[in-house]
Order: sequence, then C-alpha cells, then structure tokens
Amino acid sequence: MTIHDPHRIAFASDNYAGVHQQILDGLAIANGGHVSAYGDDPYTAQLGAVIRDTFGEQAEIFPVFNGTGANVLALTASMPRWGAVVCSTHAHIHTDEGGAPERITGLKLYPVPTPDAKLTPDLVATEAWGFGFEHRAQPLVLSITQTTELGTVYSLDEIRALTRFAHDKGMTVHMDGARLWNAAASLGVTFREMTTDVGVDILSFGATKIGGMGAEAVVVLNPETAPGMLYLRKAIGQLGSKLRFVSQQYLTLLENDLGMSAARHANAMAAILRDTLEGAIVRGEAPELAFTQKTEANAVFATLPRPAIDRLRETFHFYDWDESINEVRWMTAFDTTEADVVRFAEAICAALTDAK
Amino acid sequence: MTIHDPHRIAFASDNYAGVHQQILDGLAIANGGHVSAYGDDPYTAQLGAVIRDTFGEQAEIFPVFNGTGANVLALTASMPRWGAVVCSTHAHIHTDEGGAPERITGLKLYPVPTPDAKLTPDLVATEAWGFGFEHRAQPLVLSITQTTELGTVYSLDEIRALTRFAHDKGMTVHMDGARLWNAAASLGVTFREMTTDVGVDILSFGATKIGGMGAEAVVVLNPETAPGMLYLRKAIGQLGSKLRFVSQQYLTLLENDLGMSAARHANAMAAILRDTLEGAIVRGEAPELAFTQKTEANAVFATLPRPAIDRLRETFHFYDWDESINEVRWMTAFDTTEADVVRFAEAICAALTDAK
Amino acid sequence: MTIHDPHRIAFASDNYAGVHQQILDGLAIANGGHVSAYGDDPYTAQLGAVIRDTFGEQAEIFPVFNGTGANVLALTASMPRWGAVVCSTHAHIHTDEGGAPERITGLKLYPVPTPDAKLTPDLVATEAWGFGFEHRAQPLVLSITQTTELGTVYSLDEIRALTRFAHDKGMTVHMDGARLWNAAASLGVTFREMTTDVGVDILSFGATKIGGMGAEAVVVLNPETAPGMLYLRKAIGQLGSKLRFVSQQYLTLLENDLGMSAARHANAMAAILRDTLEGAIVRGEAPELAFTQKTEANAVFATLPRPAIDRLRETFHFYDWDESINEVRWMTAFDTTEADVVRFAEAICAALTDAK
Amino acid sequence: MTIHDPHRIAFASDNYAGVHQQILDGLAIANGGHVSAYGDDPYTAQLGAVIRDTFGEQAEIFPVFNGTGANVLALTASMPRWGAVVCSTHAHIHTDEGGAPERITGLKLYPVPTPDAKLTPDLVATEAWGFGFEHRAQPLVLSITQTTELGTVYSLDEIRALTRFAHDKGMTVHMDGARLWNAAASLGVTFREMTTDVGVDILSFGATKIGGMGAEAVVVLNPETAPGMLYLRKAIGQLGSKLRFVSQQYLTLLENDLGMSAARHANAMAAILRDTLEGAIVRGEAPELAFTQKTEANAVFATLPRPAIDRLRETFHFYDWDESINEVRWMTAFDTTEADVVRFAEAICAALTDAK
Repeated sequence: MTIHDPHRIAFASDNYAGVHQQILDGLAIANGGHVSAYGDDPYTAQLGAVIRDTFGEQAEIFPVFNGTGANVLALTASMPRWGAVVCSTHAHIHTDEGGAPERITGLKLYPVPTPDAKLTPDLVATEAWGFGFEHRAQPLVLSITQTTELGTVYSLDEIRALTRFAHDKGMTVHMDGARLWNAAASLGVTFREMTTDVGVDILSFGATKIGGMGAEAVVVLNPETAPGMLYLRKAIGQLGSKLRFVSQQYLTLLENDLGMSAARHANAMAAILRDTLEGAIVRGEAPELAFTQKTEANAVFATLPRPAIDRLRETFHFYDWDESINEVRWMTAFDTTEADVVRFAEAICAALTDAK
Repeated sequence: MTIHDPHRIAFASDNYAGVHQQILDGLAIANGGHVSAYGDDPYTAQLGAVIRDTFGEQAEIFPVFNGTGANVLALTASMPRWGAVVCSTHAHIHTDEGGAPERITGLKLYPVPTPDAKLTPDLVATEAWGFGFEHRAQPLVLSITQTTELGTVYSLDEIRALTRFAHDKGMTVHMDGARLWNAAASLGVTFREMTTDVGVDILSFGATKIGGMGAEAVVVLNPETAPGMLYLRKAIGQLGSKLRFVSQQYLTLLENDLGMSAARHANAMAAILRDTLEGAIVRGEAPELAFTQKTEANAVFATLPRPAIDRLRETFHFYDWDESINEVRWMTAFDTTEADVVRFAEAICAALTDAK
Repeated sequence: MTIHDPHRIAFASDNYAGVHQQILDGLAIANGGHVSAYGDDPYTAQLGAVIRDTFGEQAEIFPVFNGTGANVLALTASMPRWGAVVCSTHAHIHTDEGGAPERITGLKLYPVPTPDAKLTPDLVATEAWGFGFEHRAQPLVLSITQTTELGTVYSLDEIRALTRFAHDKGMTVHMDGARLWNAAASLGVTFREMTTDVGVDILSFGATKIGGMGAEAVVVLNPETAPGMLYLRKAIGQLGSKLRFVSQQYLTLLENDLGMSAARHANAMAAILRDTLEGAIVRGEAPELAFTQKTEANAVFATLPRPAIDRLRETFHFYDWDESINEVRWMTAFDTTEADVVRFAEAICAALTDAK
Repeated sequence: MTIHDPHRIAFASDNYAGVHQQILDGLAIANGGHVSAYGDDPYTAQLGAVIRDTFGEQAEIFPVFNGTGANVLALTASMPRWGAVVCSTHAHIHTDEGGAPERITGLKLYPVPTPDAKLTPDLVATEAWGFGFEHRAQPLVLSITQTTELGTVYSLDEIRALTRFAHDKGMTVHMDGARLWNAAASLGVTFREMTTDVGVDILSFGATKIGGMGAEAVVVLNPETAPGMLYLRKAIGQLGSKLRFVSQQYLTLLENDLGMSAARHANAMAAILRDTLEGAIVRGEAPELAFTQKTEANAVFATLPRPAIDRLRETFHFYDWDESINEVRWMTAFDTTEADVVRFAEAICAALTDAK
C-alpha cells in the first residue's frame, strides 16, 4: 500500500527521489529462476562487457552497495596499509561518511581546505610530501569528487593536471563519482573522456542518485593500482548475494542513454532554478539572496536570511549547508519537473519577501 | 532483455533464487515522489511499528545491506572494543565472511568445535572464561545461528539454556538469523517466541534468502545491549540512502504471511528431497549415499562418491561442503517446486548408479 | 663498547639525548629478584600513589611504551567507536604518528588550521558541530598538545577556556603532554594546576623526552571518561611485561624535582639560544634570520636561507620543519649545556654570513 | 630506593625476573651525548650487522617494544589485508594478546586444536584451503611458536616439514620466538639453523624473557615476504625513539654467548625440577602429581590436587594453566638457582603430602 505522496518533490537531495520506471522494469526482467550468486551471473557478466566498452578494455567493475562502500573499497585497494589520502576538506569521505574510511580500514585522510571543493596541484602539494619518511602516513592516493560536494565540476584539463601531478609523485588517483553522470552531462563528454583518458586510476561510480534503487560500484581503470579487489569487497562487507539485480540497474542506465539523459535533465532543472532566481534578484524580487557557488550540475548553493529559510522549509525540504553563514543547498533530481522548479522559485521569493 | 533461463532451478543456495513477485510489486508501490533518505521515510516508519508488533514493544530495526553487515553491526554494537565473540567453528561469521568481523571493527572470535553447528552451555563454557583478566580478549558476546550453517535448528529450550548461561556470565546473546524464517517455520513458532521470549538480545534478521531482493537488518531486542546503533551502521558503511525500498521488502514479507509461507514451502521441499532419497537408499537405488546432518529446514547435507558428485554437477549447481569427506550441501528455496525436487532426486540416484 | 661520541650534542630533538644518570641508577635499584609482571609490582604500585599526590586523588596512571601508544590509548578510551577528535593541523597525532590513530583503532581526526598550533574555542567550534547527525563522525574529544608542536605553551586560562567550551559540548579533553615537564616549567605551575585543576580529563604524560629511557603513560584524571583502560592498553599492544622498570623511571623523575629541573634547564638553554640570536640580528650578525614562533619552552623555530641551512647542517643535526619556507626547528634537551648553545649560535651566524 | 625483595624467586614466568647485570652495564655504555633517534644510531647499525651474521646476509631486524608488537607487526607485514593466519589454539596470538592481532590490524586467525601446541602439516591442512574463494579469509600465513606455549620444542625436521608444506601452498611462515633462546639451547643449534635454514620467513625474536629489560624485535629472514616494515612498525605504534637502548640489549645478549648461556641455564633448572619431581613420584613422595607436557625447555606443566595448589601458592607464585583440570605451569628463568629449584620441589612435595 502506498503510504507516501508520490507527487511530492523536495529540493533536498537526489537520493530523495525514487527510481526510474525502466529500472523497475529491468529488475523484473532479471527475475525468475536461479543464477549464481555473488556476481557469477549473466547480468554481471554483461555489465563487465558494457563497462569495458564504456571505460576502456582494461576496466573492471565491482558492484557494491553504497557510496561509502565504493569509496572505502577503492581507497583501500589503491594503497598499502601505510598510505594516506589527500582530499578536499569538503570531500564526502571526510565530512559525511561517519568516519567510515578511518574505521573500516584504517585510512588516514589529509584534508586540504579549498573554497569550491576543487583541488589543484598546488593545493595537493601542501600535503603530498614526506615520501619515505616513516613518521608521516604516506600520501599515496589523491581523491577528487566529480561533481564536487559543492556542485562544481572539474574540467578535463583540471583533472589531467591533477593526475599528472599525482602520478609524478607516485600517487594513485581516485575519483568519487557519486554524481558522475551529472558531471559528464555538464561537460558534455563521455565517461571515458572524463576518467580513463585523463588519467584517473580508480572510480567510485554511482548509480543510485541518478535514478537507481541502490547501485554503486568501483570501476578499476588502471588494474595495477588495485590488487585484491575481489577479496576486499567481501572483507569490508560490500558483496551482495543477488548481484544480478544491482548489475541490471547499471545495464538499464547505460542502455539507451537513460542515465545520461536523466543527468542532463537534472542539471537543466538546477540551471533553470538558478537563472530564475538570478532574474528575480535583478528585479529586486529576491532580497538578500546570494549564491555561494557556481551551478555547474544539479545543485544550487545560496545564502539567505534565517527567517526566510525557516519559512521556505514549511513547504519544501532542503538542507542547511553551513549554518554559520545561513548557507543552504537546493538540489534537483531526475524526476524534478520544470513546474516544480517554478513553484519552488516562487516560494523562495515569497519567503524572502515575507521575511523582510 | 532477459539473458538467463528463468526456469532453471539450482540446489546451490537460496540466494541463487530471484525475488517474489509480491516483492517486486511492493517496490513499485513505494516508488515515485520524494521521501527523506536514510530511513526517515514512511515505509521505514511503518516497518518500525510492524517490528514492535512482531518482536515486542522494545524492539527496533536497523535495515542494512547484507548478512555480513548485519552481523558485524550487531556484534560490534553489543560489546566494548575489548570484547570477543564465542561462536561455533561452523559460524558464518568465522568461515564465510572473508574475515569481515575482524577487519571491519577488530572483532575477536573464539570458535568452538561442534559437530552439528549447535552450541550448548558446556561448549560455550570452554571459551567463556577469563573475565577480568586483561590478557584475554573478554568473551562478552555469544553468537548462535538459527537455522545453523548445517541446516539444523535450535529448539526453544536449547536457546533458553544458552541465553540463561550467557546472561549469568554477563554475556550478550546474538542470533544470526540469515534464515530466521526457515527456523521459525521449522519449529512452528513466532519470531518473538524464538528470540525475545527466550532471551535473545540482538538479531541479524535476514530477508534476502527467503525471497527479498537485498534486505537484511539488525533487530535490537534488548536496547541496553546495543548503544550507538545509528552511528555504527553509518560508520561501517551499511546505511542505504533510498531505504524505503529495503523497508518495503520487509513489509511485504511480513504481510499476509508471505515470508513464513515461503519458508514452510522451502523446508517442505528439502524434506521431500530427504525422504525421497531415504527411500531410494532403502531400495538400494542410491548406493553409497549417506546423510551427515538432520534435515530440519531447507538444507540436506550428504556424502557421496566424488564421481557421482562430478556427474550430478553436469546438470545441477550445488556446493561442496567438506571436500575432504566428499560432503555436499543441497539447498531448496522459496521457488523450488516439487517437480524440481523429483527431477533432482532422480538425477542423484542416476549419478550414484552410474558412478558405481 | 661505546661506539658513539658521548660528547656530541645535536639541536635536533630532545629524544636524541640519552638518559639521566639517576634514571640509570634507579633501574639498577629496581633490578634483582622476581616481581609480578605487567604492572602488579611494588614500583608501579608506588607510582600509583605518587601520581595521586601529583594529579589528585582520582588520578590513575597506565604506563605504556611511547607517545603514539599513549595518545592512541587515551583517545580511544575517551570515546565510543563513532567518536572523532578535534585537533590542530600541527598535532603530532595528525602529522607524525604514521597514521597510527586511524590505523590502530579507527580514530577519525578533524584537524583545524592554526598558526601557532594552539586551538581556541572559536577554532574548535569550526569542527565541533553535527552532534546527533549520524553522517558526521561525532566530535567527542578535543586534543591539545602542551607544549605544542611549535614550542608554544597554553596558559592556564587558555586551557580553562577550552575545557569549559568542550565540556559544554559534551566533549572530553585530552592533553598530549609529550613535553609536559617543559610546559609546567615554562608556566611555573604544578602538573595538577595545568591539568586536573583546569579541566583536562585525560593526559598523555611523557617522560622519555625529559631524560627517561623509554617511559610514557596515560594518566586518567577524570575516571568517568575512560572506561576499559586496562583492557585497551593490552589490546593495542602497549602493555609491557617488566613494567617495574618503566614505573621506576617515573618515580626517579618525580622525586627530588629531577624532571622539573631538567625541564627548566632545557627551556633556559632555548631561551639563551633565542636571546643570543636576537642580539645577533640586532647587531647585523645574523642576516636574513627570522623567527616564526615564540620560544616558550625548549624549541626555536626560525627561517634562514637554504644555503645557510645546508652549511650549518655540516656540523649540527637539526630538522627542517617547513621546507617550503626554509623553516627549521632547533631544540634543546636536559643535557644541552650553555657552551653547546654558544657554539651553536656562533655557527648559525657564521653560516648566515658565509651564505650571503 | 629498593622496595622489593631482590632475593625472591617465583616460578610464575621468566618475565618476573629482572635483567642481567651485563644488560644494565650495556645501557650505561650506550648512554651520553646525542645520537639520532628512531634507529638511525650506531648501536642499531651495529645490531644490523650482528643480525646478518647471525641469521644470514638477507636478514633485517626491526626492534619493537613487546611480543605482541612483534607478532602483530610480523603477521601484518606478511600478508595483504585479505590474508589470515593459521595457528594453534594455544598460540599466544590467540589466547594472550587481548585480541591485539584482530584489533590493531584486523588480522583473522584460524586456530587449530593441538594437544602439545605443536602444529603438523596435516593439522595446518585443516585450515589451509579455500585459496581463491573470496568468501574465505585467505590462509596466507602459518604462525608457529618456538618454544611453544606448552614448553615443547619443534625439531628442525618438524619445522622443515611445516615450511615446505606452507610454501607449497603459497603461505608465509612466521615463528613466534618469544623464547627463541630457550628453543635453540634445547635443540643445541644456532638461531640460523632453526630459522633461516629450515625455511622460516619472518621471526618474532624476543629478548625480554631471557634477561633483557624490554627488547623485542621482528627479524625479516625472507625480505620478499614483508614489504613496508619501516612504515608499519610506526603505524602500529611500535617504534621507539631512544632506540639505541633497545638495540644495545640485543648486542649484549648476542655477545659472549650471554643470552644462550642464560637459556641453557634456565632450561637446566626446569630439567632439574622435572627430574627431582619424577624421582619423588617414583618414591611416592609426590602423591597425585602428574605431568601434562614434556619438559623440553624452561617450563614444567603438571596437574595436582587443588588443595595442594592452594597450599603451594602461599609461598610461591605460579600460574594456573587449565583450571578445569587443575593444571599449573612452573617456569624457570635465567636467574633461577639450583637452590631455588630444590626448595621449590620440596615445597611441592610437602604441599602434596599435606593435601592428602
């Protein structure tokens, strides 16, 4: 029995959304009969082939359960026990995973402050030192997030500069692609152009946020950097038994452009929200509203007076981002409609005006 | 596109099966619109209420991804960092989780040899000592599996004796219920009678093997024994975002007796297989076939000559259990039919006869 | 056979020094006969009494092997598995322990940038938030270092402000006192005034750097904050067997003011070095020499041209601190003499002049 | 001030003893002046050379603090994160390290029951299987203890058979040599003959129990099996700063046969105790005394009535071993004299007679 409102749209997170109808259809297709568990099934085999087509012949996918699992698996596999990860202070692995990287496999993080969540070689260099010095956890992995936690997007050149710098130092490059589709849609490039071709070694490849039910994976792009994936996935509790249903979600998203068109749509909705509000500001209809980040994918970061935030929240669900400066995040999803955006923009303006 | 044979049935494991049609239908019902992620949704709320009805007012459920996740979460939450777990040498946590309990949260196991995978107070006592002695990891948790890994089932009296012994020692009792439905069906009792009422403190409550798509959970029956569940689930990477779809699988299984009738069916299929083969043995049609365990739920453990094993495997998928004695495991699932069983029993007899 | 130069003094670290003659004498006194191992001996018992005299009746000491062991033990004991530690980016636990806190017990660190390695309530507040939010590792411990890694010293008021802030948030306060003696000598206060009386809950209490051979300890000042110390010390590999010899080192240092007078001496040597060089700067005899931190204990941090650093290093051993700005650390020890300091200051000036 | 009885001898453990006078003298010799910390000192360098002479040119030593540290370091370095250790159920790493192997680096143990604490290839085979199967933590290391925890000693042939078996399986062989000197003295062989020459890959090489103050180490005999030792030692908290004093203890023990003659002496004292009691049994002067293990080194394991145990303990300190069968362990040390043994044997007989 349906006990929720299937028409309600929030601007809180793309994981508030449900799943594509095609995903549900795909699950039914993969159902019935017995297939081997734990990934030795036809759907996972086919996914392997599709991934090689998508990321290059050397690529191998390891489906897991969630983004934390993918990140911890990828980072752990990428370095010996004495390694450490250079990341942004905004990195999901540092701020939003309940300490899972440290707790599950003892990973050490070197978080680097950065205003837009994007690292540069110069920023990485502030922690990428001390190689060979046993007192310093060795900074052997660079982790970047694409799209970033602040909704910004690394250009291909920016990624290439980072991987070149990291590889020169002997570091492996991990990309947290919980929203990889949004990034590729934003840049108008293929997954391969944005990862393998610019030097990314290992990838957390998310599918849940773009319309899957629960499907995340690690894609090893440079097999030399990640030995023991098969064992590690099991050892950190991220191996599913009925894996055909996870693999099938990927197959559905990768077929017929489903995932990428969902990403283009979600991004477009955020752009419309941003443009609409920019217009309202110009017209004086959005007093004290300001934006704190570029809107390059499916998120809008803004500051507005606390009373307006409170007012708006009576009707719409969204997250505070930095309470100390009244910053909020508004996020669109594959199923956000233009009408939803218009209604939300109007509500924002009304809340701002009322709060005056 | 369907790329597997939806009519093929194996006798390898209940997780080779797909999902109940009602589960798929339930997922569609929960789809659409935005609900809060990470468990703050109407389906998870309703599941909370159903669980209280099922296990008692104090019970609380924490959905996770897989059995390893449930076990590691339950065991970790049940003891301080210096605790250890007394379990059977056959325990899944010792033999089949890739070392996850040790690796994820540093759990120490004291495995105790036991022929039928069932512990007794006397067996537990062989490791439940040294309390207060700092050189010995403190045996603070007893973990039992119901049904056991050898397909046997603890009676209510047996469980009660164990929980009484453990509680007297100050130990917490965990039940690994990956196949809890099969156990309850076997005993003809309610979940509550088999857990809360006989002193179990914390439960890994599986739903995948009985026909879910991917739904496991920890149920805390004695809240005092497991502080910090909310944080720990996240910290070990077992918190799903679109949790409504996991909770909905439980709701479906718990409604209209779906899960329990599935368990009764699976158990009945194993009983038929066992009976059929017992008959064949009596009639001399199953030369050298012998059984190594009682068939109390949905598994049959048997020894037979290696050539017969090899021959049978040409047509049916099943697992070697103890290769050193040519022991195999045959397992039935919710979707195994009587015709499948008959065909399989015939194939076994044929393989045995041919191998002579 | 002596195979080193017992008259060579470096300015690298106070752990380049040997041990006080009294310490060696004390070890001989504790030798002979059999006493119980692992701390159940008369010397450890007597140390317990001395510690209660020194830090207050509730204080309890747990000798360990090294500073990393003390810090990991103290921090682990101070919080549940889902806790995290707010510390300075300069904290030894973050920069110089090879990732031991993360690797040994999965500790999560929130490092906060600070120019002089001293935290303030405002700085702590930048990470002390998100209580109750499961996605954020809970910031339950504040760790400060006294003297800091940059040779600066928290005043009693500064400590009190921090502990008050932390306790208001429900956080436990840990002090890394690897150089606690130097700090107490600098402030002219007792250990108790600098720890227990200003709200510190748990202390890493070093003795190696002030002239011990190898003696570190955790002192629990607020017993409620650190359950399970006995078990945890063993479980993280920090329980010594012939503990009488570690305890005896503490007894020797705490008797007759030995440790404190050693600290006063080391601090004085650093002050003379600083003053001498300040004078040289004024007289134009130390071109391009600048100081980057206050000299409040036994360390001098300075920048000077790379050629001068290289030249000086031909004769004296000392550490680069921040290579990117040519910053070095010069450190004095209990056995540094005024003649050593004078010779070193002259060498610095000569190197600076030559390098012009 | 001496606050213990320097003439009291216990039969509890060799770590109840103090240290050799020569060890104390050696510490004084290494004192004075500044040398580099953390092992970059002349004594550690010289120890490196001595170790190569002792164990073979490829051998490298890494001093640590205690036996647990040595074992955890050696085992961790010997295998990837997905490895596991086959050991005896009596192994110190399983029974007496507070779970440190599991907790510090997530090591998984497969304990194998064995009556005399000695493994054989057949016993190892019971857990050395499942290679390549991701659900099973991979049994990649075999750990044996020499002398065993039950005072027995592996012969060279027995070790060779084990290392051959293990290497054939691709496993690394670790020897826990907390009492390596006693074993070598028992067999009348060199360290090299008992380790390198019979295929041991990595060694925990104890010095504390044979008369050191606190000196344990890992010796890597096969460098290919243990990458990253330098980093791992630091990362698990086992790197001492004033390492010259640890290295010097080894140098003292390895010079002039000091350690080996201490071991011969301790073993001889145990043999006298055993012989004396055997004689008493024959003469009927030790009613109900029985031995449970061979006395091959410095320990005697015996059963005797509980009242006799209690009576004897009024005067002498020793350990219960298996309380369920009234088994005790009596252990001699480098400083146990023949007079001590005679007095102890008499006391045992008296207690046995009184208890009748």
